[in-house]
Amino acid sequence: MAEHIFPTDSLIGLNDREVLMKQKSVVIWLTGLSGSGKSTLGRALEKKLLDEGYIAFLLDGDSLRNGLNKDLGFSIEDRNENIRRAGEGCKLLSNAGLIVITSFISPLRQQRDAIRAQFKKGCFVEVFVNASLEVCESRDVKGLYKKARAGEIKNFTGIDSPYEQPLSPELIIESDKFSEAQSLEKLYSFIQDLVKV
Amino acid sequence: MAEHIFPTDSLIGLNDREVLMKQKSVVIWLTGLSGSGKSTLGRALEKKLLDEGYIAFLLDGDSLRNGLNKDLGFSIEDRNENIRRAGEGCKLLSNAGLIVITSFISPLRQQRDAIRAQFKKGCFVEVFVNASLEVCESRDVKGLYKKARAGEIKNFTGIDSPYEQPLSPELIIESDKFSEAQSLEKLYSFIQDLVKV
Repeated sequence: MAEHIFPTDSLIGLNDREVLMKQKSVVIWLTGLSGSGKSTLGRALEKKLLDEGYIAFLLDGDSLRNGLNKDLGFSIEDRNENIRRAGEGCKLLSNAGLIVITSFISPLRQQRDAIRAQFKKGCFVEVFVNASLEVCESRDVKGLYKKARAGEIKNFTGIDSPYEQPLSPELIIESDKFSEAQSLEKLYSFIQDLVKV
Repeated sequence: MAEHIFPTDSLIGLNDREVLMKQKSVVIWLTGLSGSGKSTLGRALEKKLLDEGYIAFLLDGDSLRNGLNKDLGFSIEDRNENIRRAGEGCKLLSNAGLIVITSFISPLRQQRDAIRAQFKKGCFVEVFVNASLEVCESRDVKGLYKKARAGEIKNFTGIDSPYEQPLSPELIIESDKFSEAQSLEKLYSFIQDLVKV
C-alpha cells in the first residue's frame, strides 16, 4: 500500500504557522475515569484560551463517537481503535496549528504513550484528572456506573476494566478536592507559558 | 451504543468562533482524477490564505493514508471508509473554525453528496479540478497510471474504476488549460468573499 502513497509537503511549515497564529500547537491530553470532570475542565479551558486570543479546540470522546468513530463499538479492539483515531485527530488539529484539548478516558498507559510518541517533546501534556472511583460513581452524571454495576455495560473502566493511572503525567488535577474554577486555574497556570511562541 | 454517548456542547459556538477568528469556516472540496493537480492547487491556496491572514489547512488524501486511515486498503469498502473519515476530519477542522481545503479523488457523487449534506449551505464548496484522463495519464507524476495499465493496481480511478464528474459543482477549474497561477487566481477569486465574516 505504502508505495502508492505520496504525501505532499505543505508550503508552510509548522514553525511558520505558529508564528502566524502566535501560539504553540500544544496537545493537552486529559485522562481519567468517567465522571472525573475531564470534559467540564476541557470545555472551560477551551473557552479560557479563546477568550485570551488563542485558537483552541476540545476533542471530546463522546463527540468523536458520533462522527469519526461512529463505526466503532466498545470491544477492546474497538476501544483501542477509538483512541488511535483520537490521537490522529489530535495530530491533524495540531498540524493545523491549534491548541488541542482532549477528553478521553484513555485507560491504558500503552495507548497514551503511543500517542505521546508522535509529538515533539514539550508539545504533549498529559494531565491526570484524578477523582476517586467512589466520587465518580457517586456523581454518575451519565448513569453509566449504575448500568455497569448491573452488568448492562461490559468492560466499563474502573468497574470491570482497568484504569492505569499515569506514572509521570505533566500535571495532576485532583478534581475531587478542588472546585472547577480552582482546577481550571491550576491547569491554565501550567500551560500558559507552553502555548506562547 | 448511542445511549452511552453524551456529547458535550462547547461553551463557544461556531458563530462566536468565526468572529474571534475573523473568518468563515468554509470547506473547499477539490475533486478530480489522480494527476489533475488537486494537491498542487490545494497547497497553493493554503499558502495564499495563510499569507492573507486566514487560518487554513490542507487535508490531503496521501497524508491521511499515512495517519488516520493507515488501517485502510484500496477495496471499494475501504475507499468508501477513507472518504467518510476524510469528511469527518473536515468536520473536526471546520468545527474548530478553520478554512479546510481537501484534496481527494473522491470519485463518486454519492460520497461527495453525503459529505456536503453535513455542512450548512454555502459552507461546502465543491471544486471540480478537471483535466482530461489523457493529460493526467501523460503527466503520471506518481507512476500510478502505468501500474494501473499494467494491472499492478486494481480499481484505479479513470482506468478500471469510474470517476463520476460533479453535476453542479460550485466551481470548475480546467487545470489542463490554465497555468497553476491562473487556476489559483480563479479559485481564490471565487472563495475570497465566502471566507469573510
